[in-house]
Amino acid sequence: MISVPAVIADLVPPVDGVEIVRWDVVDEPPREDLEVIVVPQTPAPFVKRLHELPQLRGVILSSAGFDNVVRFLPPGVQMANAVGVHDTATAEMALALMLAAQRDLPDYVRAQDEGRWLRREDRRSLADQRVLLVGYGGIGRALAARLLPCETTVTAVASRARDGDEYVERVHPVSDLPALLPEHDIVVVAVPLSEATRGMVGAEQLALMPDDALLVNVGRGPLVDTDALIAECGSGRLRAALDVTDPEPLPDGHPLWHTPGVLISPHVGGGGRAYPPRQARYVTTQIEHYLRTGGLAHVVATGQEH
Amino acid sequence: MISVPAVIADLVPPVDGVEIVRWDVVDEPPREDLEVIVVPQTPAPFVKRLHELPQLRGVILSSAGFDNVVRFLPPGVQMANAVGVHDTATAEMALALMLAAQRDLPDYVRAQDEGRWLRREDRRSLADQRVLLVGYGGIGRALAARLLPCETTVTAVASRARDGDEYVERVHPVSDLPALLPEHDIVVVAVPLSEATRGMVGAEQLALMPDDALLVNVGRGPLVDTDALIAECGSGRLRAALDVTDPEPLPDGHPLWHTPGVLISPHVGGGGRAYPPRQARYVTTQIEHYLRTGGLAHVVATGQEH
Repeated sequence: MISVPAVIADLVPPVDGVEIVRWDVVDEPPREDLEVIVVPQTPAPFVKRLHELPQLRGVILSSAGFDNVVRFLPPGVQMANAVGVHDTATAEMALALMLAAQRDLPDYVRAQDEGRWLRREDRRSLADQRVLLVGYGGIGRALAARLLPCETTVTAVASRARDGDEYVERVHPVSDLPALLPEHDIVVVAVPLSEATRGMVGAEQLALMPDDALLVNVGRGPLVDTDALIAECGSGRLRAALDVTDPEPLPDGHPLWHTPGVLISPHVGGGGRAYPPRQARYVTTQIEHYLRTGGLAHVVATGQEH
Repeated sequence: MISVPAVIADLVPPVDGVEIVRWDVVDEPPREDLEVIVVPQTPAPFVKRLHELPQLRGVILSSAGFDNVVRFLPPGVQMANAVGVHDTATAEMALALMLAAQRDLPDYVRAQDEGRWLRREDRRSLADQRVLLVGYGGIGRALAARLLPCETTVTAVASRARDGDEYVERVHPVSDLPALLPEHDIVVVAVPLSEATRGMVGAEQLALMPDDALLVNVGRGPLVDTDALIAECGSGRLRAALDVTDPEPLPDGHPLWHTPGVLISPHVGGGGRAYPPRQARYVTTQIEHYLRTGGLAHVVATGQEH
């Protein structure tokens, strides 16, 4: 017996040997014999009461992060995060921000509101830009796939050096960053937030970026030092396109809102309409895995005895 | 003896057997023995005096259109337009407009100006959209290459049916449009303007597009009936992202400026920084062709005796 949220219920095909019920993990469960539940993106207050499900063996999340649920996990229950489910939407948002910044769309939106035909002679492109992907997981790879046909060059950086793939010849270690930053026109940050990555783009790293370079952050706000970014963009030396900020939500009156050359979207990279079909496909593979093995794939935590 | 405009002069490599001089076709020519000249994108008043160049055999333009120069062509002089030179920038602009419209960037720009963190729950994506390319020349193909990694489906339409390529299985004839329009979420218009294409997207075609579909025009303004578009977008049924308008430039106070769901950029698709390296490559192949054959490739007109 497996439960899935309403938003994907109609998208998960029937699987032989298992009954699938609809549950948003909000109120009482539809049945007590649930073995695997899928937690939606929306608030799911019942996660605090998972111990009330005696047959529970697995919890599948709808987000990559899992900090909020792990502490409620009953002993022995496996938890899997949503792997790859948000890569498409997030990489797409990074591309949208990058193109908008390179092609001056914010200026055209403002000119449109004033009914003004704003021609400018010197116009940037995305083509021919050297793009540095800081973080080369699912989002980084999905972005590389989109960037190469845009006639850019793509360089990938991850925590450790490794071989490349169909998009990049090799993946550089993060220790190469100081040498790579001066050689790239666009830097995209898409790594998880941890103590190792917090503030990894600070004044020192920004100073290494060439004049007029663009910083794109679709990871987490605190990966970038906001004050240092305001200084570099405020002077007109760098530009930025941010789907995430620090603090977040960005409060009224915060100077980042009005720093020149900064485009801000309100943390809308993941999710959206691209999410349900991809989460449904992921959950389907997890259900098949569970039927075959009795456990989940991509387990990020298992409940401990207290 | 060949002349090239200053903007590409440093990008054209030396070619054995030919001297290349710098000339913007504005004032007096640097030499009288020019055989081939490259006309820049910027105003080039000397084109009216081409008959003053006794050895002239070829004129290479920097635009796809050639209406402005053809009447000044001395007898026997070949003229080539700029083939493929603007495809990259224009396809990139179409993708930028499409992503901005799908991912609500205009709303976020406006919210940013108000210092407002604008979350919305139902968010569109480009992924999973069915994109119809009306026009499948250089721009259409460059756009198909960019759209497929964005997880869209792509259907191509051209004036006549033909076989497909690495991006599409087949190219539909324009007579298939009425059947194709209802089945696509995004329609991109990128065809040359002619008497056959003027107004090809009118009230009847717009009515066939599904609710909430997006029309993108990076071709020429008069391909689309502006009044019909204002009606369909004003009612909230369709959306549009336009790099070209009719009339153009769009005058102050024109209702299209403030029609809901319409994003307007001021005809900035082609050109920009992507242009010089591509025009330099194109001119280089033309020079090589001229040395080999004594004529130009991609000849669109030859001067006639009057």
